[in-house]
Amino acid sequence: MITRSDIAAAAARLSGYVRHTPVIQVHGGVLDLPQEVTLKLELLQHAGSFKPRGAFNRLLSAAIPPAGVIAASGGNHGAAVAYAARMLGVAAEIFVPATTPAAKVARIASYGAKVVQEGNTYAEALTASRTRLDQTGAMEVHAYDHAAVLAGQGTVGREFERDAPDLTHVLVATGGGGLIGGIAAWYAGGTQVVSVEPEGCPALHDALRAGQPIGAPVGGLAADSLGARQVGGLMFPVAQAYVADAVLVPDTAIAAAQAVLWDRLRLLAEPGGATALAGLLSGRFSPPPGARVGVVVCGANTDPAKVIQP
Amino acid sequence: MITRSDIAAAAARLSGYVRHTPVIQVHGGVLDLPQEVTLKLELLQHAGSFKPRGAFNRLLSAAIPPAGVIAASGGNHGAAVAYAARMLGVAAEIFVPATTPAAKVARIASYGAKVVQEGNTYAEALTASRTRLDQTGAMEVHAYDHAAVLAGQGTVGREFERDAPDLTHVLVATGGGGLIGGIAAWYAGGTQVVSVEPEGCPALHDALRAGQPIGAPVGGLAADSLGARQVGGLMFPVAQAYVADAVLVPDTAIAAAQAVLWDRLRLLAEPGGATALAGLLSGRFSPPPGARVGVVVCGANTDPAKVIQP
Repeated sequence: MITRSDIAAAAARLSGYVRHTPVIQVHGGVLDLPQEVTLKLELLQHAGSFKPRGAFNRLLSAAIPPAGVIAASGGNHGAAVAYAARMLGVAAEIFVPATTPAAKVARIASYGAKVVQEGNTYAEALTASRTRLDQTGAMEVHAYDHAAVLAGQGTVGREFERDAPDLTHVLVATGGGGLIGGIAAWYAGGTQVVSVEPEGCPALHDALRAGQPIGAPVGGLAADSLGARQVGGLMFPVAQAYVADAVLVPDTAIAAAQAVLWDRLRLLAEPGGATALAGLLSGRFSPPPGARVGVVVCGANTDPAKVIQP
Repeated sequence: MITRSDIAAAAARLSGYVRHTPVIQVHGGVLDLPQEVTLKLELLQHAGSFKPRGAFNRLLSAAIPPAGVIAASGGNHGAAVAYAARMLGVAAEIFVPATTPAAKVARIASYGAKVVQEGNTYAEALTASRTRLDQTGAMEVHAYDHAAVLAGQGTVGREFERDAPDLTHVLVATGGGGLIGGIAAWYAGGTQVVSVEPEGCPALHDALRAGQPIGAPVGGLAADSLGARQVGGLMFPVAQAYVADAVLVPDTAIAAAQAVLWDRLRLLAEPGGATALAGLLSGRFSPPPGARVGVVVCGANTDPAKVIQP
């Protein structure tokens, strides 16, 4: 299981490569909530999501073969690997499914990576990427199920704790579980870490019920960023130990949270980026009296025109 | 002339009403610039621009008559006055010209204010608002030319200095001059404050050349937020004393700065909100070697679909 010292080491490695993203205090009244909320604006990260943390940490802690790196992704991880590879002068090939939005495909290509669109889901793109890995001898950069990736994403928790040390609860959106796995490993029980998933992508919710990672549906508004079929084996024991609750939200709550972020804060989040806040705004997670709640807003790789205004 | 102590008093008054907006460090490479830039994300302020600072300070430091308040605005000040009035339980009537974007009109109305659209420019809306003031006995909340408004906007400078104390230059967009007047009064020569205006709205540039506020053209992409015909009489001596340079940028540079803010930082600024950054990106302001440059990104009241992607 990854530890706080793995994450501290990742933070040192990432210095200068990733952005220390700001937090913002939001009065409850602004969000029609009874309590203040602290948002970590991780959507302002390079390449538009938290993913460069794990990608850089993976690339910086390995000897990269001449064939470069290969990643499969719903889009954000691919953009992050492409970005990190360009910064480090490494070749990158990114496999994405047909469902990846055009904005994300264009972004990956803009960083100079080769984009291969194959399969209809992340899982199918991953399979295709592994065939290619065998051919080229490139290094895989897994989207979530690798210790270096988890430790990199955990630096979100480390920064959040530094900038908002008094939080009792932190809400995090879960796809394959890299972000929440890293953050939960950082807090390690000291602050309650709460998972929020779309009803259409309940991989962690279902795994915690089953007592092991199991295949789950992949669908709905946030599937391109939260649509892992199954959570990672590395994050799962972390979640069992340190994720306090795993709630599900409907797509309508995700779209509403996107609209609220724009309307009240002028933040444009993608559906997956607004999902953690949706857990709070929808009441699916209801903090106890006196709670000091933090929310990670983790991605913005969307077409601005698609965020519906309230 | 307003002083640092006026601004410190405003900051105390505004506590709990306005948001202490975050700053973010941006590597030069991200913006294709030779030096790091520190952005103050004032576009995340309540009501989507810096304007609530001045509006709240004006409302909180006066005895408001039963008829409430009246303001004329290109849109952002109106939204801010409407927001502040709602928070303080005061009636508000807002006069905007026909050129005010629909998004801003809708926002003002959403805060419960009465919106009157009259005239084709801010100056014409102001004239109409004064006729109404004489009828109702309401209190005027001027968009920029009032000591309480200037001191309120100056709190942007105070926060920026606290969060980024080492800046040598701060770039600020200028319309009627409330924001730059307040910020320049705060820094008072300690840090070089640089004005950036659209070529289509050169009110401060022309006034500094003429040695007094004079009428200037109003046009172009950012006219709805920076389109004052003439800078305020109260800010002008502050600008003469403490504004180090006043540059002009073409609308193409403003649109490019909006696109860069979205592409590299996932920040959606309105044209006026991106104008200060445009001064730097376009090279119209060229910082000396070793400069540590700050930029105020001051507004986001636009339709997200209108920000053209690069």
